[in-house]
Amino acid sequence: MAKAKKQPRPKAITPKGFRDYFGEEVTQRTHMLAAIAEVYHHYGFDALESSAVETVEALGKFLPDVDRPNAGVFAWQEADENDPEGKPGDWMALRYDLTAPLARVYAQHRNELPNPYRRYAMGPVWRNEKPGPGRYRQFYQCDADTVGTASMAADAEICMMLSDTLERVGIPRGDYLVRVNNRKVLNGVLEAMGLAEDDPKRDDVLRTIDKFDKVGETGVRELLGKGRLDASGAYIDGVGLEPQQAEPVLAFLTSKGDTVAETMTNLRAAVGDSKVGQEGITELEQMGALFAAAGYGDDRILIDPSIVRGLGYYTGPVFEAELTFEIFDEKGRKRQFGSVAGGGRYDGLVKRFTGQEVPAVGLSIGVDRLLAALREKGRLSATPTGPVVVTVMDRDRMADYQSMVAELRAEGIRAEVYLGNPKNFGNQLKYADKRHSPVAVIEGGDEKERGVIQIKDLILGAKLAESATLEEWKERPSQFEVPRTELVAKVRDILASQAKDQEG
Amino acid sequence: MAKAKKQPRPKAITPKGFRDYFGEEVTQRTHMLAAIAEVYHHYGFDALESSAVETVEALGKFLPDVDRPNAGVFAWQEADENDPEGKPGDWMALRYDLTAPLARVYAQHRNELPNPYRRYAMGPVWRNEKPGPGRYRQFYQCDADTVGTASMAADAEICMMLSDTLERVGIPRGDYLVRVNNRKVLNGVLEAMGLAEDDPKRDDVLRTIDKFDKVGETGVRELLGKGRLDASGAYIDGVGLEPQQAEPVLAFLTSKGDTVAETMTNLRAAVGDSKVGQEGITELEQMGALFAAAGYGDDRILIDPSIVRGLGYYTGPVFEAELTFEIFDEKGRKRQFGSVAGGGRYDGLVKRFTGQEVPAVGLSIGVDRLLAALREKGRLSATPTGPVVVTVMDRDRMADYQSMVAELRAEGIRAEVYLGNPKNFGNQLKYADKRHSPVAVIEGGDEKERGVIQIKDLILGAKLAESATLEEWKERPSQFEVPRTELVAKVRDILASQAKDQEG
Repeated sequence: MAKAKKQPRPKAITPKGFRDYFGEEVTQRTHMLAAIAEVYHHYGFDALESSAVETVEALGKFLPDVDRPNAGVFAWQEADENDPEGKPGDWMALRYDLTAPLARVYAQHRNELPNPYRRYAMGPVWRNEKPGPGRYRQFYQCDADTVGTASMAADAEICMMLSDTLERVGIPRGDYLVRVNNRKVLNGVLEAMGLAEDDPKRDDVLRTIDKFDKVGETGVRELLGKGRLDASGAYIDGVGLEPQQAEPVLAFLTSKGDTVAETMTNLRAAVGDSKVGQEGITELEQMGALFAAAGYGDDRILIDPSIVRGLGYYTGPVFEAELTFEIFDEKGRKRQFGSVAGGGRYDGLVKRFTGQEVPAVGLSIGVDRLLAALREKGRLSATPTGPVVVTVMDRDRMADYQSMVAELRAEGIRAEVYLGNPKNFGNQLKYADKRHSPVAVIEGGDEKERGVIQIKDLILGAKLAESATLEEWKERPSQFEVPRTELVAKVRDILASQAKDQEG
Repeated sequence: MAKAKKQPRPKAITPKGFRDYFGEEVTQRTHMLAAIAEVYHHYGFDALESSAVETVEALGKFLPDVDRPNAGVFAWQEADENDPEGKPGDWMALRYDLTAPLARVYAQHRNELPNPYRRYAMGPVWRNEKPGPGRYRQFYQCDADTVGTASMAADAEICMMLSDTLERVGIPRGDYLVRVNNRKVLNGVLEAMGLAEDDPKRDDVLRTIDKFDKVGETGVRELLGKGRLDASGAYIDGVGLEPQQAEPVLAFLTSKGDTVAETMTNLRAAVGDSKVGQEGITELEQMGALFAAAGYGDDRILIDPSIVRGLGYYTGPVFEAELTFEIFDEKGRKRQFGSVAGGGRYDGLVKRFTGQEVPAVGLSIGVDRLLAALREKGRLSATPTGPVVVTVMDRDRMADYQSMVAELRAEGIRAEVYLGNPKNFGNQLKYADKRHSPVAVIEGGDEKERGVIQIKDLILGAKLAESATLEEWKERPSQFEVPRTELVAKVRDILASQAKDQEG
């Protein structure tokens, strides 16, 4: 430590774009991850925890999120131990998602792993990109993937599992919707437009489709054609298609009918005789049949050709879970909570390593967004549950106080003894307050002699202090003298009555 | 994906020194962490999850493990966004433990945090060092620390919590021992020897004390004096102390008496009139009194001046939990399992940031070693519990098979439908085998018509195949035909009977 004194003091700051999580933030996430893991495990998925570090070579450059194409990784060059001059060795990096490591693990262990391989993984991933409000450079992902099967039953299973998972963590039916689309249908639309696979206009069309939500049917028609005058007055150049060539896109975007069957008919018309397009529609129909047979109605899972997010990354079915209830944003405006999970079928990730095409389908849940949603809906307690604090009136009788907390803990009650300087009793109560303690226990020399203790209901005490007009509270005392032997019973009583007050 | 084809294929390998964890390895660790967190939380500790990344400046160079003084960190230099030429910015690194980040967090948030601050943290840490057998560059730590109090009640509490935790995760009383020592006592010994704080001989003496286990009293006496002829025939130079000057070390090393009181008397003699030494002994006595009052006898927590590990890092009490049962090492030799947790009181970590001395005491549990110990003792299942596999006899009736797994899951039974190519039924059973499935369910067209299903007990089936002589097994059929409506009941029966067989 001597050295540190001579150096300037380091700054105590969280690195830019990172954050620390305290108390309930951590435990609520832990409990949510445990609940999700339970559902995944029940569905036959096995846990996999790969290392946070991969070679840059193995990771590749396949960031799944098309919104952030320039997202980078945190990387460094290893020292080569075998080189006496310490020349740098391989480049290593922190994983940016859980899918790239899965592809590496699957390629590496494919002969030992069951095939198909259902696996789930949860943990932090890192993105070396400019942080923004609510966007961090380390965040949790929570994935389930089935590798090695092209069966639509795998895709359907994952959608149903997503629905079950959302309900399991506390999003009731009706407050979410899993929307399903298929990339092949879109490819069919592009084919029906006569755009070849390498036609650069394909990207322009995809970008335009992405704007459908904002600019509507007319807007898309203009953007695919000559262009469009923006609301801001700016003129946006169009893709330059003839009106007729743009027709399949419009037919696709407006294909949603009153029934799944009607939607499918509209889609079949939109893709014309494109083989891949018809295949995509057949896949959607297969999934739809499995959902229907398993009783997952369109209040839970909906075939919806309008979802386009992720279509650039996935190669077959694509799905997204949206929370459909409204919240107020920071400016007080109502808006839908939006997406909390997504996934789809992807190819080529394993092929990168082995040369063999391995079909796979996966799901990723945004745990932090899901937690935010539950907090928003008041389904997670905002107030931490602090421990019962046993205060210290007599420094020499620490053993007495410690046996009190031991008794409480033995009965399943979170409890601690005050460990700061006990001189100022007010500080002890301030500490209990900061800890969000429900109850404080006091035993001074006088109480000790009389074989009693004082028990303070701190929640009720705070309420009484807040309001002098609440007659119903006033009749209830917030401090009780009970025999020492009744410590556990009385604390339990108070906790129960607090829980009842909170419910009421 | 087009680009990848042109490049050479990346190698699918775990980076050197890292490893992947599969299935039960992950879930068993998750369950252990949850159990530990529960004990910590009950003791009033709050969760903290800091980011995996810290500035190199904030981390400092305070690796706690004196065995590995040259252990490094994984570090990289940030790009400075404000610099148009992209000049490098701050150095960042992966945390090497959970204590350095705690010091940073405490310094940063000390005005908002309760004081004292009890926190726990669990998660991976990274060490950039040469990997060896069983030594990885990423591993889990599981810490609890109390920051902001010098009270020995904090140290005693953490030792008792360690004892409770070990029992909670499945190490029975008698199979572990928490040994407690105090760095100040050793400082007192050095003072009694007349060695000043900056005397280079202090390090030599510490190194010699570390060899007490190997060379015994005579060996230490020689090594502190002129030197010693090694078992290998090599001559080891001594520290060069006069016999009389070495006396306090010997008195210290042989201070353990039959009772704590006797040990304390011996220690008081060893440190003579060294103030810091007497203080250390008083601290040990205070802790001993708290252990005794709380009923933690020396079958659980033992004051033991012979433990010296970590004494270089800690500044007051030091403790270590050892598993006392014997195991066989890879060469078939009996040995004690050894240390699974340790901790102690440390100063200066927060002071680095704030200039103010903040007393703190902490505990770190080696979760992976603890898991290894439980496996060693047969207290964790070595065989994974696979899902019930519903096989696919008729590809077009996937919905039927899916409703079977849905029924099983709804009753809390882990189940999945086979998603590979169903053509070859043998492959489906091989798959079930690889999945360690307890039960396979079969419904062909014939069964469907008759309203029945076939249920195979795969565990019993394997036993029958293994041995034709086990008459008691032979009387039990391993395949059953039951009405479709009895799917759940029959599977439940088989699982129950398998569980019974395993117990018996």
